[in-house]
Amino acid sequence: MKFFSDNAASVHPLVWSAMQAADQPDNGYDGDALSQQMDMAFSDLFGQPATALWVATGTAANCLVLAAMVPPFGGIVCHREAHIETDEGGAPGFYTHGAKLILAEGDAAKLTPASVHAAIDPIRPDVHRVQPHAISITQSTEYGRIYTPAEVTAISAVAQQRDLWLHMDGARFGNAVAHLGCHPAAVTADAGVDALSFGFVKNGGMGAEAIVLFGEARDTALVDSVRRMRKRAGHLQSKGRYLAAQILALLEGDLWLHNARAANAAAAELAAAAGDRLMHPVEADEVFLVLSPAEAAALRAQGFDFYDWNAPAGTPGAARLVTAWNSNPDHVAALARAIAAL
Amino acid sequence: MKFFSDNAASVHPLVWSAMQAADQPDNGYDGDALSQQMDMAFSDLFGQPATALWVATGTAANCLVLAAMVPPFGGIVCHREAHIETDEGGAPGFYTHGAKLILAEGDAAKLTPASVHAAIDPIRPDVHRVQPHAISITQSTEYGRIYTPAEVTAISAVAQQRDLWLHMDGARFGNAVAHLGCHPAAVTADAGVDALSFGFVKNGGMGAEAIVLFGEARDTALVDSVRRMRKRAGHLQSKGRYLAAQILALLEGDLWLHNARAANAAAAELAAAAGDRLMHPVEADEVFLVLSPAEAAALRAQGFDFYDWNAPAGTPGAARLVTAWNSNPDHVAALARAIAAL
Amino acid sequence: MKFFSDNAASVHPLVWSAMQAADQPDNGYDGDALSQQMDMAFSDLFGQPATALWVATGTAANCLVLAAMVPPFGGIVCHREAHIETDEGGAPGFYTHGAKLILAEGDAAKLTPASVHAAIDPIRPDVHRVQPHAISITQSTEYGRIYTPAEVTAISAVAQQRDLWLHMDGARFGNAVAHLGCHPAAVTADAGVDALSFGFVKNGGMGAEAIVLFGEARDTALVDSVRRMRKRAGHLQSKGRYLAAQILALLEGDLWLHNARAANAAAAELAAAAGDRLMHPVEADEVFLVLSPAEAAALRAQGFDFYDWNAPAGTPGAARLVTAWNSNPDHVAALARAIAAL
Amino acid sequence: MKFFSDNAASVHPLVWSAMQAADQPDNGYDGDALSQQMDMAFSDLFGQPATALWVATGTAANCLVLAAMVPPFGGIVCHREAHIETDEGGAPGFYTHGAKLILAEGDAAKLTPASVHAAIDPIRPDVHRVQPHAISITQSTEYGRIYTPAEVTAISAVAQQRDLWLHMDGARFGNAVAHLGCHPAAVTADAGVDALSFGFVKNGGMGAEAIVLFGEARDTALVDSVRRMRKRAGHLQSKGRYLAAQILALLEGDLWLHNARAANAAAAELAAAAGDRLMHPVEADEVFLVLSPAEAAALRAQGFDFYDWNAPAGTPGAARLVTAWNSNPDHVAALARAIAAL
Repeated sequence: MKFFSDNAASVHPLVWSAMQAADQPDNGYDGDALSQQMDMAFSDLFGQPATALWVATGTAANCLVLAAMVPPFGGIVCHREAHIETDEGGAPGFYTHGAKLILAEGDAAKLTPASVHAAIDPIRPDVHRVQPHAISITQSTEYGRIYTPAEVTAISAVAQQRDLWLHMDGARFGNAVAHLGCHPAAVTADAGVDALSFGFVKNGGMGAEAIVLFGEARDTALVDSVRRMRKRAGHLQSKGRYLAAQILALLEGDLWLHNARAANAAAAELAAAAGDRLMHPVEADEVFLVLSPAEAAALRAQGFDFYDWNAPAGTPGAARLVTAWNSNPDHVAALARAIAAL
Repeated sequence: MKFFSDNAASVHPLVWSAMQAADQPDNGYDGDALSQQMDMAFSDLFGQPATALWVATGTAANCLVLAAMVPPFGGIVCHREAHIETDEGGAPGFYTHGAKLILAEGDAAKLTPASVHAAIDPIRPDVHRVQPHAISITQSTEYGRIYTPAEVTAISAVAQQRDLWLHMDGARFGNAVAHLGCHPAAVTADAGVDALSFGFVKNGGMGAEAIVLFGEARDTALVDSVRRMRKRAGHLQSKGRYLAAQILALLEGDLWLHNARAANAAAAELAAAAGDRLMHPVEADEVFLVLSPAEAAALRAQGFDFYDWNAPAGTPGAARLVTAWNSNPDHVAALARAIAAL
Repeated sequence: MKFFSDNAASVHPLVWSAMQAADQPDNGYDGDALSQQMDMAFSDLFGQPATALWVATGTAANCLVLAAMVPPFGGIVCHREAHIETDEGGAPGFYTHGAKLILAEGDAAKLTPASVHAAIDPIRPDVHRVQPHAISITQSTEYGRIYTPAEVTAISAVAQQRDLWLHMDGARFGNAVAHLGCHPAAVTADAGVDALSFGFVKNGGMGAEAIVLFGEARDTALVDSVRRMRKRAGHLQSKGRYLAAQILALLEGDLWLHNARAANAAAAELAAAAGDRLMHPVEADEVFLVLSPAEAAALRAQGFDFYDWNAPAGTPGAARLVTAWNSNPDHVAALARAIAAL
Repeated sequence: MKFFSDNAASVHPLVWSAMQAADQPDNGYDGDALSQQMDMAFSDLFGQPATALWVATGTAANCLVLAAMVPPFGGIVCHREAHIETDEGGAPGFYTHGAKLILAEGDAAKLTPASVHAAIDPIRPDVHRVQPHAISITQSTEYGRIYTPAEVTAISAVAQQRDLWLHMDGARFGNAVAHLGCHPAAVTADAGVDALSFGFVKNGGMGAEAIVLFGEARDTALVDSVRRMRKRAGHLQSKGRYLAAQILALLEGDLWLHNARAANAAAAELAAAAGDRLMHPVEADEVFLVLSPAEAAALRAQGFDFYDWNAPAGTPGAARLVTAWNSNPDHVAALARAIAAL
């Protein structure tokens, strides 16, 4: 009974069937019929013109966008616990040719206008200091917290005032929209987000994420940069139609939202059992809870697998539990009972 | 009836079933059971210790290896028509941080010891000149020609004498081994190749190639570099088991060789029909032939799709026809007849 | 009466005469007689084999060394207020091809073994996290504080335990040795420092700094990397003899030490006058003091020029005063009196 | 009697005196009075608005400009014997983050519209091919040949038609203008050159070259990029006034032109003596001549030092002789006699 991560969960049956339906000759790279439908599918979803490209991983999605937005001598404001800072093996430095991540603070890995200002206002504009060119936020955050449309809009206002691009790392974007219950555009394009890494791998896909560009970011030169860098990074798969098929299948009938709701519901069930143990309110599919080593061992002895986490000060230990689109209800219920019984 | 390229052909049924067999929870990235079998599977195939990693594309496979072997201030000897020089959108420059491709000559995109010497012997060892650190050859070449074990060994001798790594871009490695009828090690590890980009995408796979390292290249530091750069390039897919599954399925029972033989046979059928029109002997699955614009139009009018090619001097035009593991025998026969009838 | 920085002070007369003595034909780049003396001159100074190369700036010196020590996917531990982090316009990211600066804490921009451990101990060794490969410390620090030989040795012990290189940014190395009164090797090579950026520009030179490599860092491959990267960065000046001449002149008769003592003495005079206003003990040639806007204006009205500084919490303002090898004693005395009279 | 290269010649007395006149306190970096005069001095010289920045070396000048003009995934058309291709240790790859040098042909290292077309016309615009973004020509060329204003204009027409920037590597720009006898703008800005690396080091300077930007290249964003990259590359010297002083001294009273004429005249004297031995017409300060090993030895026995050169096919050997602004007339006359006497 694995609660390690949603990032290695099985692939949704409808994704499988869409991939198999694509198993006939078509043009290579993104010249096939499915890849050509990407722009329209995302434009329909977001209710406005959008340009969308597939890539295999969230790391590539994040970094290709940031590299197109930020010169090598520039900087990207992100939270000091952002995935791009802590968990991508230095990928932003590779893709951007050494641009700096300018680290900002904020509870539960959420930036705020104030924390962004605190990070960038002291930066003199001279050549000795790296200047910010973009802000990147994670939705839902690395601690499973979710930016409301108003919160994104407030950060976007800072971005616009300082002429910065705003990127959203949406590895768990579906979980966020499922929680918010809003239109997907309300918390992205309409809130001032220029580019979204729309995650599908953690939400029923196999190996396909979408880079989605809105408004000014659809500027020909920027899109052309992303396309050329995708090739240059070896991410332009020749059988791209299988990636497009995954994404289109998950968009079809809002399967992405359906899957995310299922994962969120499972996490909520665990959260309810965890009560005071929770380190953060549970809004998406991640549950962080205080757990002593003995308690963790007890759960593991019952067959539950999960990652230990850095314990907050004054607590004996902590753990991270992650549900997924296909979390087994029996397993979830059993884990909830086991937690409650600790 | 498409003869554009093998790179967008359908996926072999046994690959599909292997992927689906992998559709159950396992560890993420390359911590799953299948990914863990890669080293052993390739060691078995090559009859010696090998280290193998999956990536989604041949461009990534080539460039990750070369970047681990060559410092940013170094150079890589390759043919001036090598795929890494002409068709990867500058990927080697990206991955190696600007190392230089040192271009060498040779008939049909094949390097020879003499052409390598001609390229590197004039390079003074001082800091003003970029020094070679590796040689990269393509097997089969960009014109469908194949290096014999003796030819690879001869180039390897130059590499060893000059302390250069030897890399083989094996996007169509299967076609080469199928043609040679030799043991796969005879034309790689045993011939002095340090690293092989073993292509599966063009040979029945969906989106998985293998980086295979032999001998000294399995040195811990080099393998560690490749692993870390794979992550840093966003190529460490979290559901890596689906990539390992593809590769292992194609190794199983030498399916890779079976598929390559089928593609080669189809190309041979076209070659026989083309006769004097051939620009290069046909050894793999690519057929380059002289074709006037009118003749090309005539074939297209019969429903055959293919790429035009740069015409050699003194000829009215040229075309490239590529077969694949699943080329329809009826289509091949029809095209052969149509060519013969021109 | 300028107290902005030592970095734009005049050039020492003996440096001028050495440059002019070099004004005759010799080999280009570093093939001239003076450049060839660098290794011996620094070996003599440090009492052990040293390899030394000139470059025009401290930024280049720091970054060339770090780039030779750290792979693009690696990291460098430094203080969050280190010059390489805050004031080099992202140069480390450029030279290292995107390696990460891993920021550590410490009073007055000084690292400690504990602060280094705090920064690196939580880093899992997996490929998702950037691994440290070097530690860089600044001597004297960005706040004019000085590491004792024992303090450097303690950090070096952490470096050795974790197999990290230890680099010292010695833009104001002379001021540190002048303060410590120790042998220059005691706080560098003998304390475990692998590479020193030995600053001369702030200490009577015009445009020449030395990269000095000790012990294992003199390993042929590393030195070769630095040499090739120096050329590749456009820092191998063809008339290098004029840079070597500057450095050798400053080493001759310990002129570098003489100059540093003069600068330190001037700063000490200001420090004595500043009393409780001091934000940090004054050990080198930089004086940081609390100063209200009105007081700063009063000093400026008397003809003293200096930079404002970020005020510590609870203070009305702050300023930085920097002396130099040739600070005018009358100006120093006048400023001391003016500060005392505030 | 050294005829190795002009790149290590002595420094002109007026350059020395200008540097010494700058030896008083001023602002650091390029905030000093002399650096601030650069734009105006070059605007005056070229008779139109120009933006000018100093750097220490021609390699840095060339590469900073090219990096500002060309994205990492782009390409730069240059001659296959261009200095940026053969002699800068891979610096363009470093500065541009891996952009490709697209090699073109041409007699005596001179590009022509036809050779540029031959290099770029076959490049499909798709993402698999690196697209050209700039053309770089060397004036005078690596073989001492000179582009006329009409020849530059013709190349510029190709650049404009294809929307490429045009850069001139003017390491020996003075020699070219001295030969042409034209206004310096006639062969640069007025002929469509966007950026010039104006060389002074080979022409009486010590360690200062100018990046000069014209017209659209003075666009704020491009200049800002160059400025930031100059810092990021460690080329923003804190005592920049000594570099500005060199350049301004060489512009004063057209000293640069005077020096170049002297060097050209010395080369012409050697050329007249060489007669049929010449491999290229002598237009600047470089003389390439056929010389058998025995003849070379004979000259060296008489005290003349020079570099051997790659012999053209069918000749027994070759040499390169380079004069300079201060070539000793007696040495030149003696060498001319010795050559004539061979």
